[in-house]
Amino acid sequence: MSYKQIGIVGGVGPSATVLYYQQIIEGYRDRIGGTHYPEILIHSLDLGEINEYFYANDLKSLSDKLVQTVKGLEKAGCGFALLACNTMHMVFDRVKQRVNVPMVSIVDAVLEEVKRHRVKRVGIMGTTFIMLSDIYRGPLERLRIECVQLDEDEQVWIMEAILGDLQHPNIPEETVSRLMRDVENLGTQGAEAVILACTDLPVAIREEHSPVLLLDTTKIHVKATLDFALGKNE
Amino acid sequence: MSYKQIGIVGGVGPSATVLYYQQIIEGYRDRIGGTHYPEILIHSLDLGEINEYFYANDLKSLSDKLVQTVKGLEKAGCGFALLACNTMHMVFDRVKQRVNVPMVSIVDAVLEEVKRHRVKRVGIMGTTFIMLSDIYRGPLERLRIECVQLDEDEQVWIMEAILGDLQHPNIPEETVSRLMRDVENLGTQGAEAVILACTDLPVAIREEHSPVLLLDTTKIHVKATLDFALGKNE
Repeated sequence: MSYKQIGIVGGVGPSATVLYYQQIIEGYRDRIGGTHYPEILIHSLDLGEINEYFYANDLKSLSDKLVQTVKGLEKAGCGFALLACNTMHMVFDRVKQRVNVPMVSIVDAVLEEVKRHRVKRVGIMGTTFIMLSDIYRGPLERLRIECVQLDEDEQVWIMEAILGDLQHPNIPEETVSRLMRDVENLGTQGAEAVILACTDLPVAIREEHSPVLLLDTTKIHVKATLDFALGKNE
Repeated sequence: MSYKQIGIVGGVGPSATVLYYQQIIEGYRDRIGGTHYPEILIHSLDLGEINEYFYANDLKSLSDKLVQTVKGLEKAGCGFALLACNTMHMVFDRVKQRVNVPMVSIVDAVLEEVKRHRVKRVGIMGTTFIMLSDIYRGPLERLRIECVQLDEDEQVWIMEAILGDLQHPNIPEETVSRLMRDVENLGTQGAEAVILACTDLPVAIREEHSPVLLLDTTKIHVKATLDFALGKNE
């Protein structure tokens, strides 16, 4: 079996990195079985530094930092790299162009999943950085898939929930209900699927309670990563 | 503030690596405060491969693998490295000699803690690899600190508990009680402190129920790592 070593650009935030690490190991072992585990390289960045680039919309410094990080992982021997965070994908293309190893994009992986389900209208929920940017909307619209979204006040409230309640082990029942109402609202607007474009959202928004298809971007990204690591797509 | 980037040789096992990662971030933020996080490099190894070296007592292949791993982390930019596992410390000295960056030893950190508490007799609990080796006993005896241990059958049972019950979220009450009786047994033999030389043991053996001082080797190693990263010991 051939295996290309995975390089993870992580730390944004640390709990997302732990989720990727655990899901990659679990997924590898489900596919391969036996006593072996995948070798994985991780460079966990300073979330505080990366947030400064996000808030200042300083995409130049963000790309430079990510290029330097991926190049370090290359030197340590990774076969390909991924950014373990939706928002960092604002600069995915320009980072990819400047490094030597291949990179697996969360957006491409989610687009493949959207196409596979043949949905024509999707909702997106995530941080305000994701909602204000074209990360998902641009490529979806190029595929003639319509994007519906919540009003601005609700997007701001979701950002506050992500930074606040969703960081704690016991999420208040009213936060969970309001997030579910948001999903239903997107469904009412015609969304056949909702992209949960933030690692913290699937903790509160559960498949079994949802009237529409939920796309957990971390799970989808991990699956695409394992496909690439194990050479399924070549 | 100066900060030397931490390089973690992990994956042995993955849950220990997550524990180190989370405790390092938490400890850093407790000390430094503010919005920043430490940059951390991790190379997570294949536990299956490493276990083969352990079971075959193939210390040559084990050292070669760890030297290659630390050298990779050096290239990616770490300022120093650590092995996130007690058992890998069987080859700590020979790995340290062959790499360029400094390395922080779990055994040295625990010895410092034993000295600080001025105990004269300690018990050790861990995997059978730890118990059969001289990793802790050798250096403790050179400090004229006496080591007491459980009989062989009990050590085998502890190994089975580590590989079995302690890997699951709900540890059976009888396993917890038996481990506590082991601690008491070591206390009865005169141990003033017990070294919990396996990441999984502190999950079941809790300070508040123990008649003797418990030394959680992961916590002690993380503290020494942060001291080194932040230049406290220079």
